[in-house]
Amino acid sequence: MKTKLGAVNVLYPLPTTLVGAMVGGKPNFNTIAHVGVLTVGEPQCICLGMHKSHYTNQGIKDNRAFSVNLPSLDLVKQTDYCGLVSGSKVDKAALFKVFYGELEAAPMIEGCPVNMECRLYDVVDFPSHDVFIGQIVATYADEAVLTDGKPDVAKIKPLLFDMPRKRYWTLGPDIAGCWQVGMELKRQGRD
Amino acid sequence: MKTKLGAVNVLYPLPTTLVGAMVGGKPNFNTIAHVGVLTVGEPQCICLGMHKSHYTNQGIKDNRAFSVNLPSLDLVKQTDYCGLVSGSKVDKAALFKVFYGELEAAPMIEGCPVNMECRLYDVVDFPSHDVFIGQIVATYADEAVLTDGKPDVAKIKPLLFDMPRKRYWTLGPDIAGCWQVGMELKRQGRD
Repeated sequence: MKTKLGAVNVLYPLPTTLVGAMVGGKPNFNTIAHVGVLTVGEPQCICLGMHKSHYTNQGIKDNRAFSVNLPSLDLVKQTDYCGLVSGSKVDKAALFKVFYGELEAAPMIEGCPVNMECRLYDVVDFPSHDVFIGQIVATYADEAVLTDGKPDVAKIKPLLFDMPRKRYWTLGPDIAGCWQVGMELKRQGRD
Repeated sequence: MKTKLGAVNVLYPLPTTLVGAMVGGKPNFNTIAHVGVLTVGEPQCICLGMHKSHYTNQGIKDNRAFSVNLPSLDLVKQTDYCGLVSGSKVDKAALFKVFYGELEAAPMIEGCPVNMECRLYDVVDFPSHDVFIGQIVATYADEAVLTDGKPDVAKIKPLLFDMPRKRYWTLGPDIAGCWQVGMELKRQGRD
C-alpha cells in the first residue's frame, strides 16, 4: 500500500561536494550536494544546482570555470561549515590548502581526495537556481584512493547527503557488479 | 601528492533508478543512475542523463512524462537486468506490478519503496545524450520506509552506483546532521 506524499524529492543520497570558484579574484568554496551526472563520453558533463542567492554563482559566470572537490568523512565539519557561511563574509579558502590545475579560475582543495576542474559548458536558468553544467577538463586524486589506477569510492569515503532527514551518511559495503548481476535473468531466456 | 588522471568523472555514488515511461502505448522501464537534483522549491526539478540509443527516450519525448522509481537492494538483479536489455526486444514491465498516479504516461513500480511521477520540464540536448529535466508532480512511498511521515533513506536501502569500478554499493551508517555539525566552527568565531 502506497502513501501519496505530494512532490517530495527522494532522489537521495547524493555525494556532497565543495565547489570551488574565483569570486572577485579570490578563491571561494561552497558546499553543494544537489549535483548530477549528465553525460558519459565527449563532452563529459556534470551539473550543479545552485540557489541564486549563493555568492559563488557570479564567480562561475564571470570566469566560466569551477572545481568540484569530494571531501572524505574526516572533513565533515569543514564541509558543513562551508554550507553555513557565505564567502561574502568569510574567507573560506583559508580553511584549506588550495591548488590549481590547467584552469586559472578553478581552485581545488588539496585535502579532498579527488578533485575535478571543469569548464562552464552551459547554464540552465530556473527562477530560483542557476544550474551550472560543467565539462570535466581534468581530475586529480590522492594516490591513496586509487585501486589499479582508478578512483575507488570505498577509499574516497564520500559524505552522502540526504535532504529529507538532513543527514550525512557513509558508504556501506558493495553488493554486486553492474551489467553483471542481472545476467542471470538475461540467461534465463528473458532476452 | 596528487595524481592527474585525465577527465575522469568521480561524482559517485549516485542512486540507481528505474525510469518508467510509456513507449508505443506500453509501459517500459530503464535503469538509469546518471541522475541529479537541480532545484529545491518551485518548480522542483531533477534530471536524467540518458544516452540517445535508449528505447525509452522517444516515449518520454512523446508523452512529456516519466517516473523515477528507487529500487531497494532486494531488487538488484531485476534492476541490473533492466539495464542489460532493451524495451525494443523485451517486455520489461512484465517483471513488475505497475501502478499509475496522476499522470497517464508515468508508469510506476509497486515493488520499489519510493516512486516519483514527473512532468517533462525541458530537454538539454547533447550530441550523445538527452538530458531530461523532470518536475516532480507527486511522490509515493511504502509506509514501511517512512519515519515520522518522511522518506527514510536507511529504510529505502537504495542501490548506489559507481561507474569507475562498475559496482553497486549499499548505504552505511549516518554520521552527522547537515547545517548542524559545522556549527562548532561557526561558533569558534570563523563567521
